[in-house]
Amino acid sequence: MQTRELLVSAPGKVILHGEHSVVHGKVALAVSLNLRTYLRLQSTASGEVRINLPNIDTFLAWEITALQPLLAGCEEQGDLKELDADLLKRLRVFTGILDDSTDTRSMAVLAFLYMYLTVFAEALSSITVSVWSELPTGAGLGSSAAYNVCLSAALLSARGTISSPLTPQQESARWCKEETELINRWAFMGEKIIHGNPSGVDNAVGTWGGFLRYQAGNITPLSWVPILRILLTNTKVPRSTKVLVSGVKDKINKFPSVMKPVLESVSAVSCTCEQTLTEMATHGPSAEHYNILEELIDINQHHLNVMGVGHSSLDTLCRVTLARGLHSKLTGAGGGGCGITLLRPETDASVIQSTFEELKSCGFDCWETSIGAPGVQQHSSAALGQDILKILNSY
Amino acid sequence: MQTRELLVSAPGKVILHGEHSVVHGKVALAVSLNLRTYLRLQSTASGEVRINLPNIDTFLAWEITALQPLLAGCEEQGDLKELDADLLKRLRVFTGILDDSTDTRSMAVLAFLYMYLTVFAEALSSITVSVWSELPTGAGLGSSAAYNVCLSAALLSARGTISSPLTPQQESARWCKEETELINRWAFMGEKIIHGNPSGVDNAVGTWGGFLRYQAGNITPLSWVPILRILLTNTKVPRSTKVLVSGVKDKINKFPSVMKPVLESVSAVSCTCEQTLTEMATHGPSAEHYNILEELIDINQHHLNVMGVGHSSLDTLCRVTLARGLHSKLTGAGGGGCGITLLRPETDASVIQSTFEELKSCGFDCWETSIGAPGVQQHSSAALGQDILKILNSY
Repeated sequence: MQTRELLVSAPGKVILHGEHSVVHGKVALAVSLNLRTYLRLQSTASGEVRINLPNIDTFLAWEITALQPLLAGCEEQGDLKELDADLLKRLRVFTGILDDSTDTRSMAVLAFLYMYLTVFAEALSSITVSVWSELPTGAGLGSSAAYNVCLSAALLSARGTISSPLTPQQESARWCKEETELINRWAFMGEKIIHGNPSGVDNAVGTWGGFLRYQAGNITPLSWVPILRILLTNTKVPRSTKVLVSGVKDKINKFPSVMKPVLESVSAVSCTCEQTLTEMATHGPSAEHYNILEELIDINQHHLNVMGVGHSSLDTLCRVTLARGLHSKLTGAGGGGCGITLLRPETDASVIQSTFEELKSCGFDCWETSIGAPGVQQHSSAALGQDILKILNSY
Repeated sequence: MQTRELLVSAPGKVILHGEHSVVHGKVALAVSLNLRTYLRLQSTASGEVRINLPNIDTFLAWEITALQPLLAGCEEQGDLKELDADLLKRLRVFTGILDDSTDTRSMAVLAFLYMYLTVFAEALSSITVSVWSELPTGAGLGSSAAYNVCLSAALLSARGTISSPLTPQQESARWCKEETELINRWAFMGEKIIHGNPSGVDNAVGTWGGFLRYQAGNITPLSWVPILRILLTNTKVPRSTKVLVSGVKDKINKFPSVMKPVLESVSAVSCTCEQTLTEMATHGPSAEHYNILEELIDINQHHLNVMGVGHSSLDTLCRVTLARGLHSKLTGAGGGGCGITLLRPETDASVIQSTFEELKSCGFDCWETSIGAPGVQQHSSAALGQDILKILNSY
């Protein structure tokens, strides 16, 4: 145990372009969402491992002596590419979480215990982990990945497997490339526990931040990218990603000659957007860059409607924002869910405020935030808002 | 002069699919619109040629002896592929219509006189022609073509160049294929006078009726097609076709990799629609056929929005109709203008009525009509509505 207290955070994720078409081998752009998950890890002398997840009303503790036997048969820090299915099975029995239960609380507990046991292995220590997230869960915003990335970074750092990069002069610090890769690999294990067969995009965004290009299983972070202000809107219309994905597949099968060019066009939208973002970061952003980003958002929103994953609530979002010259698209699975609205540097605070209020009056949740922000970070307590510190310190 | 009185009509036109992308070599489907233009030709003994166009408040007459000299230098029924530019020039001087004037009245008069002189040539007769149209002018609904087709059919028939197909037992009759081709060729001359460089699609639809496939200058009538009920809505938002066409071109040049697949997809929409219409006509229409037609309408409307030729008035049309389960798209140039809404066989009259009323309350003009109806026809007076007869007989 290297440390008395660790504060870390990781961002959420939105798909900027390429949702759905990515399933059919096309390019998607995933990007960090600066609604973050915050984690505080304290080393204690209680002989217990404790987890506090106030967002989902979950507060649990286990005796270390009771956890120890679960490690029998595990190799220390074994192959990180594969989940240790036997350990996971033993954990389900130990916690009484049934094989077919997939609820948020159970999954969060399993991912925590699995990561704790595999990271600390022969050196299990008393710790208390408290997590607070600005991200709504189940909204396709990568909340589980942000959780897993925070857990991975904090546990690996507390164990001493990776450093604690924060120096006394700093408010926030990032890990080096090699350590970040380790954080990402371990977070991916947590994602596998929670989602079964995740793409790895969400944990990559939570770890690296910024913009990532994703195609056919290959994830490439973009080197130079700007941070863009956005409104994030949750229409709160429930949807099933599975049903939506299969609806798009059916439509492609029904109208192949009509739909395949649409997927091509979406892929080109992603690539043109990537090119524009790179130009913005290297030459400085111009009004014309923002015009292009807006045009691409509009085009893609129409394409998503063609795929049949639009929704009247998303049409409302687009209409309300366009009435103020702002451009929106759905993000993620569609059929309701969340949408993003690009804000220009010159967009007036009063415009944002009135948009915000009208969206609220439609029954939507709305956040003013940004995309492209850094990935996982270690923080000093001075870096964190009082409200967040208050929550994390109350356990 | 073969006849004392002739009654003819020709339909308007809408583009069902392929507007704008047809400019870039893709397939379009044009279809007859059963808002018709009606023409009554009477042979008189007045020594005058008279034209009455009450829609555009135009009532003119010329002495035949004054027109005769204009024919000097014309070959009788010369090459019908080329406009006789010298005759047109003499007509402009004669009527005092300036070279650069393109207003509806002037163009209608020039087309009439040109057709009258070239059809009757050495045998100019006293006639009165009265035209009444259900089509709004300048709305992209082929009103000039319906006018030219009516003129062409009536003048050629009155001159005896083609037959008068109506037998005493019939209410309406069509000309044979060869005669229809002659009507179309002469109507195309009228279109050239009015539009300069028309595609020939509008007069082909007015002549043949039904559905026509149009690609890269080739016009092919579809053999077997159903008649479909529609609502036609004129948003009355003025637009410039020229500006819209050039905007699409600019967008293709700006985002070629994004836009070219969209044109491909629109072309595939036209072809899939053609296939579906053929199936409907050969095997009988089914609910699934209508589902497909509706899906294609939605897809194309989104594509037209991607091209940038949508308009908030057209969004309103789509929203109002979709709220009643009806599917709409813009037709023609977009940016306002007209839209069509497909009615299913089972669509209830009360639904149509309430849609109609809500569209009216948005400030739109709205007609319940059909597409796919016959082209140019000769009628007995019994075939025509009392209101139309009353107008045509009042001059």
